[in-house]
Amino acid sequence: MFIGVIGAGDCNDDVAAKAEAVGREIAKRGGVLICGGLGGVMEAAAKGAASQGGLTIGILPTSHKKNANPYIDIAICTGMGQARNAIIALTSDVLIAVGGEYGTLSEIALGLKAGKPVISLGGWNIKGMLIANNAEEAVKMAFSFR
Amino acid sequence: MFIGVIGAGDCNDDVAAKAEAVGREIAKRGGVLICGGLGGVMEAAAKGAASQGGLTIGILPTSHKKNANPYIDIAICTGMGQARNAIIALTSDVLIAVGGEYGTLSEIALGLKAGKPVISLGGWNIKGMLIANNAEEAVKMAFSFR
Amino acid sequence: MFIGVIGAGDCNDDVAAKAEAVGREIAKRGGVLICGGLGGVMEAAAKGAASQGGLTIGILPTSHKKNANPYIDIAICTGMGQARNAIIALTSDVLIAVGGEYGTLSEIALGLKAGKPVISLGGWNIKGMLIANNAEEAVKMAFSFR
Amino acid sequence: MFIGVIGAGDCNDDVAAKAEAVGREIAKRGGVLICGGLGGVMEAAAKGAASQGGLTIGILPTSHKKNANPYIDIAICTGMGQARNAIIALTSDVLIAVGGEYGTLSEIALGLKAGKPVISLGGWNIKGMLIANNAEEAVKMAFSFR
Repeated sequence: MFIGVIGAGDCNDDVAAKAEAVGREIAKRGGVLICGGLGGVMEAAAKGAASQGGLTIGILPTSHKKNANPYIDIAICTGMGQARNAIIALTSDVLIAVGGEYGTLSEIALGLKAGKPVISLGGWNIKGMLIANNAEEAVKMAFSFR
Repeated sequence: MFIGVIGAGDCNDDVAAKAEAVGREIAKRGGVLICGGLGGVMEAAAKGAASQGGLTIGILPTSHKKNANPYIDIAICTGMGQARNAIIALTSDVLIAVGGEYGTLSEIALGLKAGKPVISLGGWNIKGMLIANNAEEAVKMAFSFR
Repeated sequence: MFIGVIGAGDCNDDVAAKAEAVGREIAKRGGVLICGGLGGVMEAAAKGAASQGGLTIGILPTSHKKNANPYIDIAICTGMGQARNAIIALTSDVLIAVGGEYGTLSEIALGLKAGKPVISLGGWNIKGMLIANNAEEAVKMAFSFR
Repeated sequence: MFIGVIGAGDCNDDVAAKAEAVGREIAKRGGVLICGGLGGVMEAAAKGAASQGGLTIGILPTSHKKNANPYIDIAICTGMGQARNAIIALTSDVLIAVGGEYGTLSEIALGLKAGKPVISLGGWNIKGMLIANNAEEAVKMAFSFR
């Protein structure tokens, strides 16, 4: 089960805590974490998954793996900027958006376009998304699509 | 001035009429029409622009120019599926969304992320978008960013 | 007829002269020039085409049209780095390689993979390429596939 | 150490045996196998790596992980066709080309363009490539760049 966790590259402590909890829950259930590989929500989610021994994959917008946050096990270097958002959407079985700005919105839209379930945790509320109230609920919802 | 007109590949007559009017206005003002090259809003906008002798560019998701609608002068074949939405956002100076579904939403988000003005005509209303009431107003707004 | 002219972003005067002659010939015959939009062979070919009033399209690796050379009429901003080479190969009906290094080789390979005729003018000689002795011959060969 | 093994999607038994041996050696030395995720050389290399418990990553041209060969642990779905070749080149620390046709040549070229060591095992011989005589030697060369 590949769960994409999407969100902004900069975020406050509250959002980071949610993302980290999401990452932890994914790893506890044996899921693989997919993210954009950079900071903010991406780093917090990867940190959470890594803390439970989960596998983390970062699909980077840049060409160099050194741009990945320290919790990424596998850095995919696309060199494609925001076009890599389409790869995150297609590679994930389910997406969880934690907060997020315009980049996140593009991933939500591409996920919905590709027919993937997309769960919102404290951010965008686009028709077709599922709404979770906390990290545990978000991950439970995600695994219900296994 | 490159104006991206984005919208669904299938649309009803009302939306198509709006898109065609947008295309006509863009060409009348000497703008170049950028779109995704396929049917629906993309075709209607290109038809409108072509009717006024405007130049039309279709950035196709597929590998073959035969997939372009008949009003496209220049077909760019990306073979990249929805990842081509990022190219539409980056290539356009301003974007006008006419109705639209999830693919359009991804283009809106990518445009806003890239700092482009994005105008809504009868569809998505995302914070940061400008709202136009009709085709003429949408194109006038777009050219105000020249 | 869309003719892709591919070659290095830095080149000596001799190679630039060849590329400029190729661009001129393409425009004289009414072809549209596709290139990578940057300097060296790309700029020389676009300059040649522009000198004859031909249309020039630059498919840029970057996100900003300001990176296009001054002879590009239509800058497509991909923001995708070398992945844009695939778009050049797919968008061109025929490719002419003028000198060139590894980036050019990737375009030659992608062109041949896509079944496009690829003509060599003073550079890579890969099985499946056609060899031209001068700019006029290269363009004549290219138009024979119309 | 991420080693990209590149080659044709269809190959004869001799080439497949070489690719499988390359995959085995990579896994024995603790390397991660990157490939295009499909059949032929890609499948044989992944089979070899999997036989030694190695991790295998397939960067697919398509949008669906069901297109991955059965030995791929992690399928990255790009939906970008041959443009994904750039991702294989950027994600790998070193590339080993086993036989191969035009798609492989594009990966070789993109690898060399990105400054990656590229090793040839019984296929393309492009200036700048290193030539190996057998699978063991190819993988030993690759790990010398660790």
